[in-house]
Amino acid sequence: MEITTAAIAEAANRIAPYVRYTPILELEAGAIDVPGRIVLKLDLLQPTGTFKIRGAVNLLLSHKPELVAAASGGNFALAIAHAAHVLGIRAHLFVPDSSPPEKIRRLQDSSADVTVVAGVYKDALAMSRAFAATSGGLLAHAYDLPEVVAGAGTCGFEILNQVPGVDSILVAVGGGGLIGGIASAVRSRARVIGVETEGTPTLHAARAAGHPVEVEVGGLALSSLGSSRLGDIAWEAAQQWVTDSLLVSDEAVRDAQRFLWETCRLVAEPGAATTIAALLSGAYVPAPDETVVALVCGANVDPATVS
Amino acid sequence: MEITTAAIAEAANRIAPYVRYTPILELEAGAIDVPGRIVLKLDLLQPTGTFKIRGAVNLLLSHKPELVAAASGGNFALAIAHAAHVLGIRAHLFVPDSSPPEKIRRLQDSSADVTVVAGVYKDALAMSRAFAATSGGLLAHAYDLPEVVAGAGTCGFEILNQVPGVDSILVAVGGGGLIGGIASAVRSRARVIGVETEGTPTLHAARAAGHPVEVEVGGLALSSLGSSRLGDIAWEAAQQWVTDSLLVSDEAVRDAQRFLWETCRLVAEPGAATTIAALLSGAYVPAPDETVVALVCGANVDPATVS
Repeated sequence: MEITTAAIAEAANRIAPYVRYTPILELEAGAIDVPGRIVLKLDLLQPTGTFKIRGAVNLLLSHKPELVAAASGGNFALAIAHAAHVLGIRAHLFVPDSSPPEKIRRLQDSSADVTVVAGVYKDALAMSRAFAATSGGLLAHAYDLPEVVAGAGTCGFEILNQVPGVDSILVAVGGGGLIGGIASAVRSRARVIGVETEGTPTLHAARAAGHPVEVEVGGLALSSLGSSRLGDIAWEAAQQWVTDSLLVSDEAVRDAQRFLWETCRLVAEPGAATTIAALLSGAYVPAPDETVVALVCGANVDPATVS
Repeated sequence: MEITTAAIAEAANRIAPYVRYTPILELEAGAIDVPGRIVLKLDLLQPTGTFKIRGAVNLLLSHKPELVAAASGGNFALAIAHAAHVLGIRAHLFVPDSSPPEKIRRLQDSSADVTVVAGVYKDALAMSRAFAATSGGLLAHAYDLPEVVAGAGTCGFEILNQVPGVDSILVAVGGGGLIGGIASAVRSRARVIGVETEGTPTLHAARAAGHPVEVEVGGLALSSLGSSRLGDIAWEAAQQWVTDSLLVSDEAVRDAQRFLWETCRLVAEPGAATTIAALLSGAYVPAPDETVVALVCGANVDPATVS
């Protein structure tokens, strides 16, 4: 289904009291040794440390359930836990035991019920489905729900407002909720380019196959980009408005995390550093007159690991 | 001497290619449990991790020396090292051995010559003076030079532009270069309020005595706020335009560092977290209709210490 710009505009109004209109940071010439003008969109400064709060709040405010169930490698669960707490909704979260201890600890510190599930994201998803079916709670899929994608899309509107003349937007891709939302918001007003690690290539594989396919996932970005299949809503948007898909290595991601700390004093988790990795590694080379926004969308990592 | 708004406007033009117009982050209601609207000014995202780059670049571009000598607890030295490197100027830095290993390591990794001096800031300052006198290099005082204060003042202009209707600005105080610049830029357009730790009370002591005095310095914020006497330029500005001076405990600073990480995913060094400490600890309570900017001005700390 198509996410309309009207739905994204409604989401922006709905979520405004609970999320942050996150800032941009324009880098001085030479900070990254590439042509063009580089602007970072700092959605890692959101409550709970990722863009996921946008979709979580939009979903819960749209349905106002008494109970919500969600599966997540950590970030969406953190967002649902926070949003549910603020909105007075009970939450039960299913998190795979492959998630980083930092994320699991944060969830267990929240007011939500937490079940740690042996396996990866899809195992936790299956348990959340079963729980929602028996409990009658709202099943909050982390990325393939229109309210979640529309919520993520509000970040795209902000980029268009904050960076007039933006040519290209680099976006990390896991299940595709973020890039689906950004693409649905931006459409033809700028190029939207997906970036994934070689270990989590859901968009890349979907583009190669002509439709979303199951992929083996692994590596450094597993906890944030580790869904094994691109969402259908994201795929519909990507076919129309995503112009390219780039892969970066885990080593390039580590370099990007170090760069963000050394040069900007930002702590980015691996999945969120992929966009910077694309610029540092040469996977994406802007034109001299190009304005590029690199979305940095998550910070849920032990800060000791980035310096 | 008075730092004119014209001098600050000139500095802003001069330094623009080399520094960042740093973003603001408005917190959602309830993020800090105080009345009013709280906006963070994120000058910790500058190159070298602190506001000091503003004054360092303005000083070097104003004099264009072949050699510069500076003493610093670390942050001004880092800024001078970076600015000198970018501008093709040789730098010799004098850093007290009481500085955090993180800052000393960064300096030693730079292209500047570094002398680690036994003692505190004033010991390093004496050595930098002697070196400048014999070498003929420019002596770059970290906070009591008009070019340095005017450079810091550019941050005040940005705040006025970014936060129309700002009522109050909370600013950390060490030697006073930052608050002197902010006060000279803002003047009567908002209240400018200094915040210091109990262990580094140079402004507090100057206000009590009626003039800058030597104070014993120590505690958590020593490396960034640890000058033992308020600068004369800062004092002249403070007498006219600084409306209050607040003290916070080291414990409140640690709480503020944790808050900034947990709630905003920002890594702030102790000196820079004082402004948030003032809000969290009740040292500063805004009015319900008040717009407060809390300047967060430095991130040069081991990120492992904030989580």
